[in-house]
Amino acid sequence: MLLAKVVGTVVATRKDPRLEGKKLLIVQPLAPEDVESGRAGQPAKANYLVAVDTVDAGYRETVIIVQGSSARMASGCKDTPVDTAIVGIVDTVKLDAR
Amino acid sequence: MLLAKVVGTVVATRKDPRLEGKKLLIVQPLAPEDVESGRAGQPAKANYLVAVDTVDAGYRETVIIVQGSSARMASGCKDTPVDTAIVGIVDTVKLDAR
Amino acid sequence: MLLAKVVGTVVATRKDPRLEGKKLLIVQPLAPEDVESGRAGQPAKANYLVAVDTVDAGYRETVIIVQGSSARMASGCKDTPVDTAIVGIVDTVKLDAR
Amino acid sequence: MLLAKVVGTVVATRKDPRLEGKKLLIVQPLAPEDVESGRAGQPAKANYLVAVDTVDAGYRETVIIVQGSSARMASGCKDTPVDTAIVGIVDTVKLDAR
Amino acid sequence: MLLAKVVGTVVATRKDPRLEGKKLLIVQPLAPEDVESGRAGQPAKANYLVAVDTVDAGYRETVIIVQGSSARMASGCKDTPVDTAIVGIVDTVKLDAR
Repeated sequence: MLLAKVVGTVVATRKDPRLEGKKLLIVQPLAPEDVESGRAGQPAKANYLVAVDTVDAGYRETVIIVQGSSARMASGCKDTPVDTAIVGIVDTVKLDAR
Repeated sequence: MLLAKVVGTVVATRKDPRLEGKKLLIVQPLAPEDVESGRAGQPAKANYLVAVDTVDAGYRETVIIVQGSSARMASGCKDTPVDTAIVGIVDTVKLDAR
Repeated sequence: MLLAKVVGTVVATRKDPRLEGKKLLIVQPLAPEDVESGRAGQPAKANYLVAVDTVDAGYRETVIIVQGSSARMASGCKDTPVDTAIVGIVDTVKLDAR
Repeated sequence: MLLAKVVGTVVATRKDPRLEGKKLLIVQPLAPEDVESGRAGQPAKANYLVAVDTVDAGYRETVIIVQGSSARMASGCKDTPVDTAIVGIVDTVKLDAR
Repeated sequence: MLLAKVVGTVVATRKDPRLEGKKLLIVQPLAPEDVESGRAGQPAKANYLVAVDTVDAGYRETVIIVQGSSARMASGCKDTPVDTAIVGIVDTVKLDAR
């Protein structure tokens, strides 16, 4: 899984029937140091994913995303054509003081 | 999932029987900023995928693509040898004003 | 899926029983522009895959390859340990004149 | 699979029901030379994964991680939305003296 | 699949029960040109994988590796948490004289 920040939404009227009613969000992966410190770096423009939200995430929230076939194990995603799902809202990240 | 633009077609007469009748399109991933602003940057030449179209997408349309085993969850793709499918036509992308 | 060119063969006598009789080819991914124009660029040395041929592809032919679990959906690949399969021979690629 | 070092933890109260009770750790992939010599290089900031711990791994331990659908084969991960799992604690790595 | 060279071993006493008795090897992907010529280039330090050996491969042998869910199709790997398996020993690689 990866840490990511919710930065946008995608609206698509014409789509696969199994995507009906799914909330599609744009998320950008974050480095754990940035999540811990609360200071988010500027992610690369191209570094994003469209994810199905399954935990009612909001704008700017830090989330956990799961990719690949495991995204279909998220709530309500069984047998749907989704390869990325938001499966958690991050409260805190704690890194080892190396 | 990713945002992408339809930029071409592939014709293949000799192919796996389960690909018969499938429309194969060349898509190039897009950055969400470019989709939002309507100004598409020039994508890198090598950055493309061949995707099965399942939503009747047209040239230059912005679409949502799904990759991996989840592509087989798209309409008509069950048990087919496809790893990328177009599953939605994008109306709008809205990014958070950071 | 990706476009690729058949550039070589792999011979392996000692192998998984489910790979017996499978033709293993070395393929190198191609940019669609090069396929359309017929002028293949020089691909990076490390950019290649070993693929199971399921459509009787020949040397230098341009093919469609599928990766991941979907490669096991290709003819004769069910339940085999293969992650890349050739599933089509490309006749033509047509790109949008942007 | 990859070698990695446990460097942190993630706490998420709001999450997919199937992630309840799972320990989520931040791991950073390691080069085998560094594991063998015991001198860990400084991994790139962005190079990390959030993994479910299934072998009771501790901070700074060197572990084996498995990715993709195979992560769901780890103990207790069946049908869960996880794409990375810690499945072993590394005792030693021995490299061929080339 | 990829070509790779066996360069080391991993010992892990504490691990997932389904990994018991599995031989874990460190492999480094090779370019096909280097396999054909017999002169292996120096692979990048970080470019390696931990693979389950299913064909009794030895040190320095050139092997075929399969990744992802298809690794679980290799002998003895059904339902195990492995994402990379050695499924063949390479005898020869022959490249087209372009």
